[in-house]
Amino acid sequence: MSAGSLDKTATIDLRRRHIGPSCKIFFSHDPIKIVQAKGQYMYDEIGQRYLDCINNVAHVGHCHPDVVKAGAQQMELLNTNSRFLHDNLVLYAQRLQATLPDKLSVCYFVNSGSEANDLALRLARHYTGHKDIITLENAYHGHISSLIDISPYKFHQLSDTVHNQFVHVAPSPDVYRGKYRADHPDPATAYADEVKEIIDKVHKKGGKVAAFIAESLQSCGGQVIPPAGYFQRVADHVHKAGGVFIADEVQVGFGRVGTHFWAFQLQGEDFVPDIVTMGKPIGNGHPMSCVVTTKEVAEAFMSSGMEYFNTFGGNPVSCAIGLAVLDVIVKEDLQGNAQRVGRYLINLLEQQKEKHPLVGDIRGCGLFVGVELVRDRLKLTPATAEAQEILYKLKEQHILLSADGPYRNVLKFKPPMCFSTEDADLVVEKMDHILTDNCMFYQIFISTLFVIYSKLPADENGLECHSGLVHSKGRSQGVRQQTKHLKI
Amino acid sequence: MSAGSLDKTATIDLRRRHIGPSCKIFFSHDPIKIVQAKGQYMYDEIGQRYLDCINNVAHVGHCHPDVVKAGAQQMELLNTNSRFLHDNLVLYAQRLQATLPDKLSVCYFVNSGSEANDLALRLARHYTGHKDIITLENAYHGHISSLIDISPYKFHQLSDTVHNQFVHVAPSPDVYRGKYRADHPDPATAYADEVKEIIDKVHKKGGKVAAFIAESLQSCGGQVIPPAGYFQRVADHVHKAGGVFIADEVQVGFGRVGTHFWAFQLQGEDFVPDIVTMGKPIGNGHPMSCVVTTKEVAEAFMSSGMEYFNTFGGNPVSCAIGLAVLDVIVKEDLQGNAQRVGRYLINLLEQQKEKHPLVGDIRGCGLFVGVELVRDRLKLTPATAEAQEILYKLKEQHILLSADGPYRNVLKFKPPMCFSTEDADLVVEKMDHILTDNCMFYQIFISTLFVIYSKLPADENGLECHSGLVHSKGRSQGVRQQTKHLKI
Repeated sequence: MSAGSLDKTATIDLRRRHIGPSCKIFFSHDPIKIVQAKGQYMYDEIGQRYLDCINNVAHVGHCHPDVVKAGAQQMELLNTNSRFLHDNLVLYAQRLQATLPDKLSVCYFVNSGSEANDLALRLARHYTGHKDIITLENAYHGHISSLIDISPYKFHQLSDTVHNQFVHVAPSPDVYRGKYRADHPDPATAYADEVKEIIDKVHKKGGKVAAFIAESLQSCGGQVIPPAGYFQRVADHVHKAGGVFIADEVQVGFGRVGTHFWAFQLQGEDFVPDIVTMGKPIGNGHPMSCVVTTKEVAEAFMSSGMEYFNTFGGNPVSCAIGLAVLDVIVKEDLQGNAQRVGRYLINLLEQQKEKHPLVGDIRGCGLFVGVELVRDRLKLTPATAEAQEILYKLKEQHILLSADGPYRNVLKFKPPMCFSTEDADLVVEKMDHILTDNCMFYQIFISTLFVIYSKLPADENGLECHSGLVHSKGRSQGVRQQTKHLKI
Repeated sequence: MSAGSLDKTATIDLRRRHIGPSCKIFFSHDPIKIVQAKGQYMYDEIGQRYLDCINNVAHVGHCHPDVVKAGAQQMELLNTNSRFLHDNLVLYAQRLQATLPDKLSVCYFVNSGSEANDLALRLARHYTGHKDIITLENAYHGHISSLIDISPYKFHQLSDTVHNQFVHVAPSPDVYRGKYRADHPDPATAYADEVKEIIDKVHKKGGKVAAFIAESLQSCGGQVIPPAGYFQRVADHVHKAGGVFIADEVQVGFGRVGTHFWAFQLQGEDFVPDIVTMGKPIGNGHPMSCVVTTKEVAEAFMSSGMEYFNTFGGNPVSCAIGLAVLDVIVKEDLQGNAQRVGRYLINLLEQQKEKHPLVGDIRGCGLFVGVELVRDRLKLTPATAEAQEILYKLKEQHILLSADGPYRNVLKFKPPMCFSTEDADLVVEKMDHILTDNCMFYQIFISTLFVIYSKLPADENGLECHSGLVHSKGRSQGVRQQTKHLKI
């Protein structure tokens, strides 16, 4: 065994020397060294336990023994490519298919959510013969070139981005902060009409829409739950234009939403996407993923004449692990647990909303929950720095939570699916204390700031200081730029 | 455990129903069902042993116990993302770096050779600020959108390909069949000058070259060994144009070439690429890969402002497996074995060349060997059908070999690195029998064909028939189109 045990400072030093500096680390000023994990708990190098509220990859719990055993046994026996027949591949495809509507029957196994989404775009373009893609504001679909193009969450980070001419961005169907809100009589139709407008514009320019792609629930985009009926209406518009609907389930699939196995099913039984992509939780951390589509799309792709071969995709080890994950979800009723604990967690958080003005919105399904923090419930001023402060304070108390969304002010819960009501109690209790302290701290802080502020020269008045972080006052664009550096 | 044991016909049936038809299988008319493997041997469902001459992914031998153990132990302990500190990540990066020239010091861990090459293009474009890419004829760099664009091996398969305007194809430095051959006084310079010409054309059109990318030895392109000095001269031209040199080691790295750990090192110590991509053998089948580059390139990438996060890349399990693979290569002197057995194999094959006119060229380094079959040693008419016949006959005798190159007439040896001289004896002995039989068969066949041929109407004379396969006579394009259907 080559991996020894280094001092934390030595680990940090080696990382600085040999790992790309674009690969960020959580809590970079004092990163965590995790050496072990079990269920919903992670342990650092001195044995301190952290409650993990963020790892949606360790879906059935970190290092689940059934998954480890399935992987280890198959690794001993055979690990080769899918150009040979193997039962694991076909049985796994059959089991995955059984969780989906009948028409989604053909699988392609790949190695990551990014590879899955790239293949989905290729399938859509071959099937339709069209090129244009409609994506959502704040969407994140992966880290490879073709996906950065369709991920405003990523390409907005670039200073000199050249927008891909075939990519069109529709408003995020966010009924809290978006263009059409909860008080709108029919936000589903209104948001879908925005997609229709884009289609019309594409047509006017002589283009043709290959696909509309959306995460079934936006995660990096700020835990956004689209209004029911939105996907149906969008699919109608897109199908009429000859395009297909791609549902990206990379972050939210496999029972996380509790009531359904797939998050797109929250929209109603009358909605079936043409292509579904999977990822993160599918192998409980093992690098694997899948694209599922219809026979018609698959046949069109084949008729292009190009073989599809993926060296590691669908190997017997990955499929054994994938099967074990499905087994554990059923055996331990993790989907049911997600529903029960998710409901419990949301109730606790709703109480926090009543108690603390900073909590602007609680939204979620199952164990996919967002807590949007705002400084003002009417103006919805994003409480970005406060969100970061809460994360840091929770980390000091050994609770791992993250924040995301365009303003990084949405606390994201997406824990392993074995998360318990006791875990929910613990994290909300700690949040409550922080929010209570924060409120007192904030009042003292604001008074102090007022004194300093009034003494500053005029040209510095545009900045306000909070918890040591600097923001452009009230200008959302400024907040967005700053939050890049705040990300943990 | 969910994966049972199906009848072979049931496996085939389920595969037909649930796996994308573009995912081809070896020997599709009678595919092999492999259930177990060890070292360089694979076993089918009735216990028949196959000698594996093709799996360069199972690098240190199928299911190597040290690799399996390292993976299983780490899976039990922790498998999470690289936003937490972990020793495996940094120690593995350090160990990989130690195999490379000093200036290649910064690693990015990803999940597949395709992800690695896509990231390499992104790094090159961010660092240089340029867009144009120069690639080689017959090159294969991966299956995702951005890489199909730079892989003539793939995009030539499409009937309606639209060539990417930023991609430029230089001649493959193939001194057997290429533009400049062994009898040329300086093929390295001549081929490099072709790249220079492309750069000049790009500049004339107002473009700027971001990168030249090449497999250090072309594999799918037909086991091509570029003349020494070619990469240095290309690098000179590309650097002068402000671009970088990307060496794709996905197929050929990790000691396969015997004399060196990396195939680009065959070019001489004075050549160092700016970016190296790795893949297939790196994890002995576990889905992982890596991009290594210089500090300067890494810093330029970071300064773009975009974080790079790869969910599975660099997780502790992948790194433990990667470390174990490096350990086994050293412990079992597999690089030395590749050199010794490779030399032995090439000697045996050279004897076949003396004996059988069909064997046109033997080329290789270590356990990366190509046998190019030709019907005419002067005209170099590709013996495509004969190559396929040999593969099928070897398969009947439980030896797995493949053929590739633009005419699918190059037999490819790239076995697990524990391949032995006895294995080499066995496969060459079987090939000898097949070639001897084939010679007799071929003479009878040609006589028969002559009788039929002389009776055909004139407009059918453009086709010649061999082993039941139809080819356009002497027109390489025709051969190329046909070979699509021949691929096993």
